[in-house]
Amino acid sequence: MTKSTKHSAPAGGPPEKLSWPAGTLLGPVPVVMISCQGHEGPPNIITVAWAGTLCSNPPMLGISVTPARHSHKLISETREFVVNMPSRYEAFATDLCGVISGRDHDKFARTGLTAAPAEHVRAPIIAECPLNIECRVSQALPLGSHTLFIAEIVGIQVSKRLISTENHLSIEKAGLIAFAHGTYFELGKAIGTFGFSVKKDEPRKR
Amino acid sequence: MTKSTKHSAPAGGPPEKLSWPAGTLLGPVPVVMISCQGHEGPPNIITVAWAGTLCSNPPMLGISVTPARHSHKLISETREFVVNMPSRYEAFATDLCGVISGRDHDKFARTGLTAAPAEHVRAPIIAECPLNIECRVSQALPLGSHTLFIAEIVGIQVSKRLISTENHLSIEKAGLIAFAHGTYFELGKAIGTFGFSVKKDEPRKR
Repeated sequence: MTKSTKHSAPAGGPPEKLSWPAGTLLGPVPVVMISCQGHEGPPNIITVAWAGTLCSNPPMLGISVTPARHSHKLISETREFVVNMPSRYEAFATDLCGVISGRDHDKFARTGLTAAPAEHVRAPIIAECPLNIECRVSQALPLGSHTLFIAEIVGIQVSKRLISTENHLSIEKAGLIAFAHGTYFELGKAIGTFGFSVKKDEPRKR
Repeated sequence: MTKSTKHSAPAGGPPEKLSWPAGTLLGPVPVVMISCQGHEGPPNIITVAWAGTLCSNPPMLGISVTPARHSHKLISETREFVVNMPSRYEAFATDLCGVISGRDHDKFARTGLTAAPAEHVRAPIIAECPLNIECRVSQALPLGSHTLFIAEIVGIQVSKRLISTENHLSIEKAGLIAFAHGTYFELGKAIGTFGFSVKKDEPRKR
């Protein structure tokens, strides 16, 4: 058995498949709270799972929002937003901000989350979230039901408790959550770090 | 304590934050094997974590690939690819396909993964992966270090073992993996399903 196949599934061969119609099944995807601020009125929060990193240099990410959402208007006005990465403690608020509208609710008041100043954009960060990514929109691309906001990352705020004295970020301490096919999941066991398949010494090999 | 705050973190107030420079910290993100096929030569596999759903209707996703990669050329030629969602059993192969190049290696041979026919595109699916998403590129957007391939989802193949007799997909049976800050993770405990925060009867409340 070669090194590259030794982690394969138990015997039985590849699984039999069924054909399904096209749909948005990619997962797990991030599920994040976007805080945004229009020219007027209070800031708002919208939860999105249609989010991803788009480019390493410059660092860019994208979020997709339907034009009917209140936050679509706010982000279109100021072209700025913050991606707040929730921990499992914010899972309830994350779900809630995905199902109620900022037209009818002050979501910071309703969830008890804290709006704190960002460093590079006018939209606030959500203080409770362990990681906050401040973004400036470079392009808004209408794709159909959703507009893809392509944005440059302009700064990050990280909870102190995630950082060791060597300035190393322990992401597993963040308690991040993922979303797949309608269900929120905690992150489980770490399998390895990037490049573990070619390292002589695999600290976490299965 | 209101319903919306009852799942908050233990007392102590929002965490103290440190400022970090801009970077690609969004997570957890998917980590998927992209299979692709040029006009000539064998099919290739490239692993990407810069991937996300972009639109619900029509269903679209995006993957970002650096122009230096062999797969960038193949996808640009045929404008088709398959997103193969690995289980934890394919984690080793997933990592390997992210660190070796298809210019030097036949990655199907090297990993022992099986190329099987797709239904809608010429690129093969990776049979071992529990879920395969067939895609056709509608737009290639150069963003800097990476090109964002925006693609319509044209079909899906699902492992039979994930489907119940009621035609329900049990995503937790797929054993999916996620990627965050350089580490691969298994999915852990399910927290709830979309809308659980406003349901009277929460089956999985924390």
